[in-house]
Amino acid sequence: MEKYKEVIECVYNDVKNIDDIGKVASYIPELAFVDANSFGISITNIKNENFGIGDFETKFSIQSISKVLTLSLAYKFEGAELWDRVDVEPSGNPFNSLLQLEADLGKPRNPFINAGAIVICDVLVSHLKNPKADFLDFCREISNNPTLNYDEKVAESERVSGFRNVALCNFIKSFGNIKNNVEEVLDLYFHTCSLEMTCKELSQIFLFLTIDNFTTKKGEKVITESQTKRINAIMLTCGFYDESGEFAFRVGLPGKSGVGGGIVAIHPDKYCIVVWSPKLNKKGNSYKGMLFLEKFTSKTASSIF
Amino acid sequence: MEKYKEVIECVYNDVKNIDDIGKVASYIPELAFVDANSFGISITNIKNENFGIGDFETKFSIQSISKVLTLSLAYKFEGAELWDRVDVEPSGNPFNSLLQLEADLGKPRNPFINAGAIVICDVLVSHLKNPKADFLDFCREISNNPTLNYDEKVAESERVSGFRNVALCNFIKSFGNIKNNVEEVLDLYFHTCSLEMTCKELSQIFLFLTIDNFTTKKGEKVITESQTKRINAIMLTCGFYDESGEFAFRVGLPGKSGVGGGIVAIHPDKYCIVVWSPKLNKKGNSYKGMLFLEKFTSKTASSIF
Amino acid sequence: MEKYKEVIECVYNDVKNIDDIGKVASYIPELAFVDANSFGISITNIKNENFGIGDFETKFSIQSISKVLTLSLAYKFEGAELWDRVDVEPSGNPFNSLLQLEADLGKPRNPFINAGAIVICDVLVSHLKNPKADFLDFCREISNNPTLNYDEKVAESERVSGFRNVALCNFIKSFGNIKNNVEEVLDLYFHTCSLEMTCKELSQIFLFLTIDNFTTKKGEKVITESQTKRINAIMLTCGFYDESGEFAFRVGLPGKSGVGGGIVAIHPDKYCIVVWSPKLNKKGNSYKGMLFLEKFTSKTASSIF
Amino acid sequence: MEKYKEVIECVYNDVKNIDDIGKVASYIPELAFVDANSFGISITNIKNENFGIGDFETKFSIQSISKVLTLSLAYKFEGAELWDRVDVEPSGNPFNSLLQLEADLGKPRNPFINAGAIVICDVLVSHLKNPKADFLDFCREISNNPTLNYDEKVAESERVSGFRNVALCNFIKSFGNIKNNVEEVLDLYFHTCSLEMTCKELSQIFLFLTIDNFTTKKGEKVITESQTKRINAIMLTCGFYDESGEFAFRVGLPGKSGVGGGIVAIHPDKYCIVVWSPKLNKKGNSYKGMLFLEKFTSKTASSIF
Repeated sequence: MEKYKEVIECVYNDVKNIDDIGKVASYIPELAFVDANSFGISITNIKNENFGIGDFETKFSIQSISKVLTLSLAYKFEGAELWDRVDVEPSGNPFNSLLQLEADLGKPRNPFINAGAIVICDVLVSHLKNPKADFLDFCREISNNPTLNYDEKVAESERVSGFRNVALCNFIKSFGNIKNNVEEVLDLYFHTCSLEMTCKELSQIFLFLTIDNFTTKKGEKVITESQTKRINAIMLTCGFYDESGEFAFRVGLPGKSGVGGGIVAIHPDKYCIVVWSPKLNKKGNSYKGMLFLEKFTSKTASSIF
Repeated sequence: MEKYKEVIECVYNDVKNIDDIGKVASYIPELAFVDANSFGISITNIKNENFGIGDFETKFSIQSISKVLTLSLAYKFEGAELWDRVDVEPSGNPFNSLLQLEADLGKPRNPFINAGAIVICDVLVSHLKNPKADFLDFCREISNNPTLNYDEKVAESERVSGFRNVALCNFIKSFGNIKNNVEEVLDLYFHTCSLEMTCKELSQIFLFLTIDNFTTKKGEKVITESQTKRINAIMLTCGFYDESGEFAFRVGLPGKSGVGGGIVAIHPDKYCIVVWSPKLNKKGNSYKGMLFLEKFTSKTASSIF
Repeated sequence: MEKYKEVIECVYNDVKNIDDIGKVASYIPELAFVDANSFGISITNIKNENFGIGDFETKFSIQSISKVLTLSLAYKFEGAELWDRVDVEPSGNPFNSLLQLEADLGKPRNPFINAGAIVICDVLVSHLKNPKADFLDFCREISNNPTLNYDEKVAESERVSGFRNVALCNFIKSFGNIKNNVEEVLDLYFHTCSLEMTCKELSQIFLFLTIDNFTTKKGEKVITESQTKRINAIMLTCGFYDESGEFAFRVGLPGKSGVGGGIVAIHPDKYCIVVWSPKLNKKGNSYKGMLFLEKFTSKTASSIF
Repeated sequence: MEKYKEVIECVYNDVKNIDDIGKVASYIPELAFVDANSFGISITNIKNENFGIGDFETKFSIQSISKVLTLSLAYKFEGAELWDRVDVEPSGNPFNSLLQLEADLGKPRNPFINAGAIVICDVLVSHLKNPKADFLDFCREISNNPTLNYDEKVAESERVSGFRNVALCNFIKSFGNIKNNVEEVLDLYFHTCSLEMTCKELSQIFLFLTIDNFTTKKGEKVITESQTKRINAIMLTCGFYDESGEFAFRVGLPGKSGVGGGIVAIHPDKYCIVVWSPKLNKKGNSYKGMLFLEKFTSKTASSIF
């Protein structure tokens, strides 16, 4: 941890003062209210030792990072059958594209584009009694953090401006790949996007994908070792929209970003690192977050390659 | 090595007798002459210890696996400027698609689709005096194997039936991203595809991407450590056409396939493993090769994730 | 009229007994209940003389033929400004494609694909107090036929299975090109599709596009002469989904088809002819309808070219 | 003719002084040498009476207008079988797109996009002994104008910069829809594009598509009446790239444009009118040419609709 701490401090100071050419997401009104200059880092290693710097204890909207959590729960429920509903290929197209969905007859390219995450939410609605509450319980349990919660204002903001997600969900339903009521599926989807956490909380909740034989406080396994590896593989190939190749190339770790400006990256069997900086580059990923992680893995020589 | 040897023997026997639903590539006449039931495996570890089974010492056409070799030499020449000419994103489309090339104004998605490999050959033509001979020398040197050679019959077969590659090269030239004469670029491209090697030779030549500080017999570095990691990253995200996500998901190693039925996979700092079985699945990758590698990394728990 | 009558009788008998390789539309359950062998023709000339044969007085669901009526009313309201909301180009893609809509940033290619007709309905909702009732009044007035009505069963059937149209409408709204409430717009859209008429009624209602200076019973102009010509032009280039070129080529008249099996064709300043036969070819147009009209214009040498 | 003459003079003066926001085509160097302010009109009626104004007797490169001439000759040779090789649907995409060609497996959408015209040239090469000379003879005979000729400088300029057309031709050949040698087909294609004519000559050569029972000086029919109508239909739906709908909508006549700035429009059984003004709008059609024809058909009320 000492080695990482030192590099983090050094790179943090480096990147902090760089001119940020990114822009805060504005596609939903609530996201635009964030402090654009926020910048925080948190790392948690497999011994559960933690180090943070900057705004690492400020809550922010984790947005699409939640797609890894919904996927994990759906995978736990369905096992390999899940892949009949959603594929594991990079999309090669902007994150909200309807193009490929049409060509692929309603089977989304992967669980990290909106279309795929909506199908995943449909799977969860089929399995959960109280989808929103039960999913929240799952998050609280794997993180051993009973304070985690949705931001209802953000969820509502997503709902009233989410015409494209309504379009997506109805479009997929026209192919038969949504089994439940569109409103119920989207209600869960919009809520999962609105989950708020701090860098520290995020770096802790993702230990279940970092540690091979992770068990919860209650001593329960979350998903199998093989499933863990596979989710990491999907993060590497699909975690950053149409910049996934670039992230693998520059950073070399499985990861997932959200339009709230957060990025989670995992070095299997070593650590989970989280960066938060709200200004996004043109591809929709945190500008400073990408930069920080590239320098960090470069200096620590800790890419998986 | 003993552990791997045992697993390889076991999985080899398993997969050998499975009904092969794949089909031998026939897009160029010469490839169709191969013995469809060939099946060979070779592994070489970073101590240069080797183990092989089946047809691991039979020469076959490495085809697109050569794209990793041309990329490596071009990256050595150009450094980071290379990425102005070709991107590092998965294509999300069949390997010979012209769709994205048009949308991306002639900049190929990655160096492992045909379009990208043709641009890489153009880069080599700009740097080499005798492109075909000099590239062959590079291959011989990094593998310490002076017997490596092109299969002129295959190269000629590629040439007379390669209308789509002629189309691609002219199309890219219309965007200004081919600097040399189309015929010269394609002559190099068709020859690199025709390189023939055995599984054993392939597992040895790719040690330069397996070992962090690899040096040739003459004591020279091929590419930098950072470049090595980055090529591995591109292999993981883009090495298997539109089945790259699936390979990362099922096998969990950087790799590259060719329509000759070969697959190379690399576990950085551990080993390079090569499978050859000519029958291809619908996505153009060796059916038994994919199967073998999935079982192998699963049994040895040696994915990078 | 005598000349047309003779040719119609002759071609009707010809085509009646041809083996119909088409299929009745089944995308909404209600449409599948039609008698698949229905076959009727009606022609009305500019003197309002009418001739019919076969099932020309049976009501059927006019479906997309109504798109010409909604367009006419919206054009009357908005004039040339209408074309800021929808284009007049053939789509070159299947009728319910979302592909081009994305590329064109929410501006539908033409008013005869679903996306375009939904935008047109949005325009009508902005102008009409009671959209459904007022549009029906418009149809009754221009046809001098107070019995015209919606088929509520069909409208309901469209509504409960219309996920793709819900998707389309929300998708367009995400680009800002739907101004009203999605439910209200689609309610009008589904009702207009459910209009039912006989061949005879259809051939009469479309006189307003056949006669240069058409006035209603009350002596009012519907649209200007220039607007009439322009709607005819759009019918010629866009009236038959991705078979529009084929219809212009084989039949040579402006026209519009519906998945209920109806086709309206107009010879400006001469006549309006309507065919109804429910079995559709692969492109979604009445198989016998296309055949009949090709033979009819060929024998009467009355294409506009 | 007097009526037309008056309107032409009036509209000519109107449009002449309008600020031309178009740009001269520069995709081949030779075209850029034209006088950008050239503006000429010529009309020829079915009695072969002619009237011209402005630069109507200056030669210019007819470019894609020649696609109507090559189509006519190929249609004469092949009859309806021609449509197995090329379709008659509007493309809905920019004129040199490879997108649809891939989706349509090498069958071009229509004979007026480059891909289609190249296939048409392949048909001609199959039928003609000396393709270039024989096609020129055909043009000279139907126009009764032995002075017509290719502009070899333009043909050469097309050849040396025509990488995209080389790409197209090879791409189509990869689907098997080019039967002859690529070089020979393109040599004919580049030459046909380089044909040079005056407005007057163009308005005369296209009489064979204006007059129902046109015969050459020698008393021979060129194509059948039905073929004539069908070529006119294709011009209406496909003559102006992805602005074909717009031309039908605004002008209402079958026509064909070229990037040399020429537009031919035909009123069947009445007249052929030609405008030439080299500055093109964004869709690649003459800016003033479109404007002139819209005003002309509007004032003479002579659209076909």
